Amino acid sequence: MSERISSVETIDVRFPTSRHRDGSDAMNPFPDYSAAYVILRTSAGAEGHGLVFTVGRGTDIQVAAVQALAPMVIGQSVDDLVADPAALARRLVGDSQIRWLGPEKGVVHMAAGGLVNAVWDLAARRAGKPLWKLLADLTPEQVVAQVDFRYLRDALTEDEALALLRAAEGGRAERERQLRAEGYPAYTTTPGWLGYDDEKLARLCREAVEAGYELIKLKVGGNLADDVRRLGIARQAVGPDIRLAVDANQIWGVPEAISWMRELAAFDPYWIEEPTSPDDVLGHAAVRKALAPVKVATGEHVHNAVMFKQLLQADAVDVVQIDACRVAGVNENLAILLLAAKFGVPVCPHAGGVGLCELVQHLAMFDFVALSGSIEDRAIEYVDHLHEHFTDPVRISGGRYLAPTAAGMSAEIRSASLTEYRYPDGPAWSDGPVMAGSSTA
Amino acid sequence: MSERISSVETIDVRFPTSRHRDGSDAMNPFPDYSAAYVILRTSAGAEGHGLVFTVGRGTDIQVAAVQALAPMVIGQSVDDLVADPAALARRLVGDSQIRWLGPEKGVVHMAAGGLVNAVWDLAARRAGKPLWKLLADLTPEQVVAQVDFRYLRDALTEDEALALLRAAEGGRAERERQLRAEGYPAYTTTPGWLGYDDEKLARLCREAVEAGYELIKLKVGGNLADDVRRLGIARQAVGPDIRLAVDANQIWGVPEAISWMRELAAFDPYWIEEPTSPDDVLGHAAVRKALAPVKVATGEHVHNAVMFKQLLQADAVDVVQIDACRVAGVNENLAILLLAAKFGVPVCPHAGGVGLCELVQHLAMFDFVALSGSIEDRAIEYVDHLHEHFTDPVRISGGRYLAPTAAGMSAEIRSASLTEYRYPDGPAWSDGPVMAGSSTA
Repeated sequence: MSERISSVETIDVRFPTSRHRDGSDAMNPFPDYSAAYVILRTSAGAEGHGLVFTVGRGTDIQVAAVQALAPMVIGQSVDDLVADPAALARRLVGDSQIRWLGPEKGVVHMAAGGLVNAVWDLAARRAGKPLWKLLADLTPEQVVAQVDFRYLRDALTEDEALALLRAAEGGRAERERQLRAEGYPAYTTTPGWLGYDDEKLARLCREAVEAGYELIKLKVGGNLADDVRRLGIARQAVGPDIRLAVDANQIWGVPEAISWMRELAAFDPYWIEEPTSPDDVLGHAAVRKALAPVKVATGEHVHNAVMFKQLLQADAVDVVQIDACRVAGVNENLAILLLAAKFGVPVCPHAGGVGLCELVQHLAMFDFVALSGSIEDRAIEYVDHLHEHFTDPVRISGGRYLAPTAAGMSAEIRSASLTEYRYPDGPAWSDGPVMAGSSTA
Repeated sequence: MSERISSVETIDVRFPTSRHRDGSDAMNPFPDYSAAYVILRTSAGAEGHGLVFTVGRGTDIQVAAVQALAPMVIGQSVDDLVADPAALARRLVGDSQIRWLGPEKGVVHMAAGGLVNAVWDLAARRAGKPLWKLLADLTPEQVVAQVDFRYLRDALTEDEALALLRAAEGGRAERERQLRAEGYPAYTTTPGWLGYDDEKLARLCREAVEAGYELIKLKVGGNLADDVRRLGIARQAVGPDIRLAVDANQIWGVPEAISWMRELAAFDPYWIEEPTSPDDVLGHAAVRKALAPVKVATGEHVHNAVMFKQLLQADAVDVVQIDACRVAGVNENLAILLLAAKFGVPVCPHAGGVGLCELVQHLAMFDFVALSGSIEDRAIEYVDHLHEHFTDPVRISGGRYLAPTAAGMSAEIRSASLTEYRYPDGPAWSDGPVMAGSSTA
């Protein structure tokens, strides 16, 4: 009998990060970095790991959604799944009843992504390759076959996608050598959380420059006077040549985003990230037009490829920030990378949280080797939280992500960590929740 | 001690509608109309009812989401809640951890809507008024105070909203009299489900005209030859003067929507509904431009007011189809009605399913009495399914919704029906699920 998926385990795992306000921003004052963690097991004893990143309360909803989709994976032939993850992605996203709860957005879409990513992890382990290498070794035709073009053809056809991938075939080997030797640029958000005091901000900024980072990101949008003071401190700490990006985490409406950012222009911000609702394509276009040459970046909450398509069609973004866990997995992120390449817009992946760095580095590295062929104006976000819980944690050196060498998508959390931080019954939670509740309202 | 919310009960209730393919369309071949049904109970023994409409599998996810938000409602003062449901809506939508799972979309957003609507039902029962009358009796200032303008001000400010409401104050009493006497126009989707044969289609079309409907909607998008044949049958059955709308339920990409609809133009379709992804604002604008004078309608899957704002800003829709359960309840639908009024676009609410007619009629009637002041080119969708399960079912006469007179939002399902159709333990489900599964992929 051929190898089958024998079980899908889903674990609610939460890290009490809000105790130190790591990760605090204008919309997320007290996040507990968490995950709906997915383990596929096969009848031959193999495993595929995936996760949906969350920030505390509600992780149980995300777990319920993964479990609701799991029957579409259990019993499937592993050969079939790893040969064509797109077929699974289409079934998960297209289920005619569960689809009503999205469609292609929010909890059910991220649940599909967790399962699809776990299948890619399984596929890469079987192939004995890190995921970025598995993807980079696919032919252009194989990559295109992994993308659902149903809603994208007005911006990107299959033939155009093929042409982009074929054009990148020439330098693949040299870029792979370069990636393995030099890594992929990172930028850091570690210094800039709203909950940190001025001394810590200045110190972490200096340390980031010394560590080799050329782009540092600060959270803004809590209080204008604070933002002016903090950006002044940061700019003084890093000097004029380091790029300073700012991130409002959706706190503003369109007119407010424009007026607030004009007050920060003196500090030469490189990009403004999430100036307003992630759904507001036209709003981002208006903000971008008003604030140029400050760039506009978004993506961590952009819920599917149709939204990215429009951000690009409307000239609404200068920087596409893919997220490994927001959309329906590797397949939809391939679509977004292809769209960004078609429009010539650089991709700087969102990461941080728990596991996001580990997962998304594979997508950026694939893009460099086999699609955009460039690292210019590109960098993967890096935050130095929680990597110790992973069996194949990211490796950072000189402000760069080193290319993973282990087989898989680097998604596996150590079993001791799963035991310790399992919610609500793990020892880390024996004193109950950190915060009773908090709201941005 | 003042009256408090003492409990929130959430029930997974499913009706096995797929057995007869009622409700079948291009994307939903086998729906089981269902709900995550919400009952608020107060310390004084009062109740507020709400629901989130679903179509079968996944209703358990929706129930989990309502339960995750319920702690923000339990223990609250009923006086405070009914005096200002907007404050609750902001807390539910703004919870800084659960928000990550949206934001403002999908399962968590609809869960907020279920709870907010239940509070409005409670408020209307307490006031002894049907909800439409409670809303129509609010002052313009009170209505505006119920709307969150954070992401809307580039299209609609508080002052503009006030001006719209004040301009409608003059004729309120006369329009209320007219509404009570004549009802509100309905249109019917009963004849047009994809699963019905030609004879049934023709017969139901004739019956609809005889019943007084002036607009009939047919599902399309399964097969072009079938659509041409079915539209021909329908047009012949109803004659040239009855409006025939068609609904593709998101089956097409943009180029396909345009080419397919050009083949149906000979039958004079009044609107094309959901020609493509509900997220594709720019796509709808392109379809509208290409197909004029055929109108473009969408909304049942448009997940929040920010998306409706853009559909209006981009001239992408001729008809705004609000849904009582897709967004965060009455409050967000007030925002959408105000946006539609600002842009002068008529609202034709989506309904059908289970409970959608009962709930949404209140919003359309408020709009007529106190905001748009018009029923021209407006009609509420009507489907004659499952109304018998409600304690205050819609009343249709001569192709019109009669104004509800009972206090509340008409959301209450009979307790016998809840017992019979509770999933998975109700007697209606003793033989197990109807279909093992089906996908649109």
